[in-house]
Amino acid sequence: MTIPDQPKPSRRQLLSLIGKSAGVAAMYQAMTSLGHAAETQFSGPPNLSGAKKGASVLVLGAGLAGMLAAFELRKAGYSVRILEYQPRAGGRNWSLRGGDSYTELGGATQHIRFQKGNYLNPGPWRIPHHHQTLLHYCKAFGVALEPFIQLNHNTYVHSPGAFGGRPVRYKEVAADFDGHVAELLSKSINQKGLDASVSREDQEILLEAMRSWGGLDENFQYAPSLASSNHRGFERPGGGGVEGAPIPSQPFGLKEVLDPQVWRSMSFFMNYEMQTTMFQPVGGMDMIGKGFQKQVKELITYNAKVTRIAQDAGGVTVSYQDIGSGAAQEAKADWCVCTIPLSVLSQIDVQVAPAMQAAIKAVPYGGQVKIGLEMRRRFWEEDDHIYGGHSFTAQDISLISYPNFDFFSDRPAVLLGAFANGLGAYRLAGMTPEQRIETALAQGAVFHPAAYRKEFMTGASVAWSRVPWSLGCCARWNEDTRRKHYQTLVGLDGRIALAGEHASYIGCWMEGALLSSLDAITRLHKRASEA
Amino acid sequence: MTIPDQPKPSRRQLLSLIGKSAGVAAMYQAMTSLGHAAETQFSGPPNLSGAKKGASVLVLGAGLAGMLAAFELRKAGYSVRILEYQPRAGGRNWSLRGGDSYTELGGATQHIRFQKGNYLNPGPWRIPHHHQTLLHYCKAFGVALEPFIQLNHNTYVHSPGAFGGRPVRYKEVAADFDGHVAELLSKSINQKGLDASVSREDQEILLEAMRSWGGLDENFQYAPSLASSNHRGFERPGGGGVEGAPIPSQPFGLKEVLDPQVWRSMSFFMNYEMQTTMFQPVGGMDMIGKGFQKQVKELITYNAKVTRIAQDAGGVTVSYQDIGSGAAQEAKADWCVCTIPLSVLSQIDVQVAPAMQAAIKAVPYGGQVKIGLEMRRRFWEEDDHIYGGHSFTAQDISLISYPNFDFFSDRPAVLLGAFANGLGAYRLAGMTPEQRIETALAQGAVFHPAAYRKEFMTGASVAWSRVPWSLGCCARWNEDTRRKHYQTLVGLDGRIALAGEHASYIGCWMEGALLSSLDAITRLHKRASEA
Repeated sequence: MTIPDQPKPSRRQLLSLIGKSAGVAAMYQAMTSLGHAAETQFSGPPNLSGAKKGASVLVLGAGLAGMLAAFELRKAGYSVRILEYQPRAGGRNWSLRGGDSYTELGGATQHIRFQKGNYLNPGPWRIPHHHQTLLHYCKAFGVALEPFIQLNHNTYVHSPGAFGGRPVRYKEVAADFDGHVAELLSKSINQKGLDASVSREDQEILLEAMRSWGGLDENFQYAPSLASSNHRGFERPGGGGVEGAPIPSQPFGLKEVLDPQVWRSMSFFMNYEMQTTMFQPVGGMDMIGKGFQKQVKELITYNAKVTRIAQDAGGVTVSYQDIGSGAAQEAKADWCVCTIPLSVLSQIDVQVAPAMQAAIKAVPYGGQVKIGLEMRRRFWEEDDHIYGGHSFTAQDISLISYPNFDFFSDRPAVLLGAFANGLGAYRLAGMTPEQRIETALAQGAVFHPAAYRKEFMTGASVAWSRVPWSLGCCARWNEDTRRKHYQTLVGLDGRIALAGEHASYIGCWMEGALLSSLDAITRLHKRASEA
Repeated sequence: MTIPDQPKPSRRQLLSLIGKSAGVAAMYQAMTSLGHAAETQFSGPPNLSGAKKGASVLVLGAGLAGMLAAFELRKAGYSVRILEYQPRAGGRNWSLRGGDSYTELGGATQHIRFQKGNYLNPGPWRIPHHHQTLLHYCKAFGVALEPFIQLNHNTYVHSPGAFGGRPVRYKEVAADFDGHVAELLSKSINQKGLDASVSREDQEILLEAMRSWGGLDENFQYAPSLASSNHRGFERPGGGGVEGAPIPSQPFGLKEVLDPQVWRSMSFFMNYEMQTTMFQPVGGMDMIGKGFQKQVKELITYNAKVTRIAQDAGGVTVSYQDIGSGAAQEAKADWCVCTIPLSVLSQIDVQVAPAMQAAIKAVPYGGQVKIGLEMRRRFWEEDDHIYGGHSFTAQDISLISYPNFDFFSDRPAVLLGAFANGLGAYRLAGMTPEQRIETALAQGAVFHPAAYRKEFMTGASVAWSRVPWSLGCCARWNEDTRRKHYQTLVGLDGRIALAGEHASYIGCWMEGALLSSLDAITRLHKRASEA
């Protein structure tokens, strides 16, 4: 029954009322029960109707954020032009292939010699299922995707301080961690330690849950048994015929699986951005950049090094140098979407308010290092039964990751031999490309000692702190910089809007760049329409 | 330093010594530290050298076990012939496609109307990474494989008794289960409840582990926070620009995630046979049967209904009826590999020892039911962002499973609308094919209420208890029958060896059938060589 003349409060008003009267927890509860749970902020391509005839936008940077801005703004009727520093589009969406050359800051040049069809994705390399903006435009632009094997129970975990320094299978230590946790919690329950927190009835169910989930035996012990081995693997797995019966394996002790490398790996796979299902483009990550580029190719001016961004009441003027000829150039437009990474933008003369200038300078960039190693054969599959996924280590390389296409093939394949960050990345970036390969081989060999060096053919590395056109991998916000600078950074400054992963809360992901771009152009369009 | 004349004890002797002196746990430990852990009993194709010239083998059944036996025995020099009841090879390795007709026991005939390229795999449908026998022969026989998405954090879990009867995302309840377990165990530790079991130092590490793995806040509480939402998902996930900041979600309470459907699903994914990475053949499961069939096609006599298996000192005589003509026929050979399912074999006159006859009759067969539902569009992807994987329910259908190929396509696709066992399978098998589809639609709609019926086009079902040529899905051993009958069943009986998934400890999997086959022919060859 509704009272007709009473206006129904909006959802937002309702939530605000609940929030005021009952605190945050109640509001969350209400939001959930109202079915507000969401996986993405993407709600389809933006509606930019009513663009002023003849209005123009200059987009700086032909990465994904810039190309999406250009694509949608032109569709809306704007006159658009993109200036790009590099001789290629895509930005950090990038794949290195045989025949490519790459010169990093410091002058080292690598001539990539991977076999045809093989590649290293130095930047983004995987797409979570909830990155719906990216998935939408991949489909719209005809970019074919294939599964990216994220969680593989059969990969390795390695920590020099645990398991005698030997790598152990993820399934073994994940099962053992769960098992020991289940045994300890069962012990607490059986010793009445949780009587104050959990009802007797729920304790009974919890015990059954611990037994099933943890692989405990009938005495709630995590011990060698078919139950525990059915999670962690068998000493001898079941087979056929006379010797078919499985033999249980011996779990690791609690102390051993308390090694941080174990539970950090387990936690990693539960990270929102790391959960399955994930995808990768068929043929290399740069297929996405190329898909976007096809849509806006006639708008891009390559080899344009932006030197100054100025604005006044009449418009925006961008000075740039044509890298080929060295000639100074100028481009003018009514509005500007600037997607230049902050690491580079902070070194350019930009005419924005002091608070925006401070924001641009406030955010440091990560210096991740990736190394690709081409191997003669897929020994991780043939010898170790590992098909995709990651083996983690506490060494500088941080992980090795196995290719997710051409499974079972007899062709050479490229392993990701390092995805380093922090101190490890710092150390690898300080090396020559040759030294990086040598380090990756030395450290990665812990997982596959017999084959790693023997099957190695050629490698390539990208230390993002040395990438000339981005001077870093991606923006590293913290709570403090978010509070002080984020809203300034994403706010319009006169005729200029910033966009890119740095202007998002999904930093270091293509999705953040795209959502930032959509948000920026939506607000820019609103201002342009009102101007 | 070694003493030359002291023979080094064999590995087996060493283990036996350790076992005698220090008990089973120490032996397991030694086995592990000796690096004995194994993933498969497959060690490559069998070595059957030295076959007697002119020796012959009759193989009964052109399923995978039978065809592998025929392939390897012929390669070894035997004269081989296969008798097959059906007009097709592959056995339970089977795909139903548009244009197929299938008549079940009871007489109901289904004319399958799936679109070209779509299929239902009524039997096996996924291949674990450690099923190395199957993977070996898939490669050898040119069967292309693609990833099967087994674990998808974004699928649903549904239990009529929990969450108000609404399906919830797997990631939400898995994260909440872990989180509550971590909170409870942290509480035990902080209340000194584990002082007797865990050292103070390990308790500190365990607390850190619980915080990281469980997504706890700084007070070791599992509460709405960025930490918990980073595992379970957000009320509003992070985005770009002005509204980029994420809003945490409200976890479910402990009582809710104690629903068995939750922890059984979590335990399911840790089952040895269910762990990632998994594969499926490109184009349908029967590509494997066809791959095997190509290798032995000239050996197969189809439409041959075996009625009697006799043996004497001179050889084996198999009586069969040609189904087409009705004519009674006989085939003779020196040896016989019988891969007929026990459910059928137990109804045939077989001349073996009484113990073997008892074994053949001792093992009941499961009656699983699978239902395929072809949908006009991939609404689970488009509306719900689910790409492959399974949504579980406590209803009869047990689960629905999403297709693992043609992701993002605009073509109709076939969902697995049920994979029922136990009582649910019994009830579904008692229905007409039309009623099964109706039930699958009614129950599956709980996951996708808006689209499920609306997008439905056509369906197909297989109730294995009604499959004329197998009279069940696969052998259901228990501890008692294993103890009493298994070794008899897999032992040679005169000139006859049984093989198939029923003669293995990897029951209901193709790998069990293949390993059983290799074991059977290896022993048969040994006897034949000695004879």
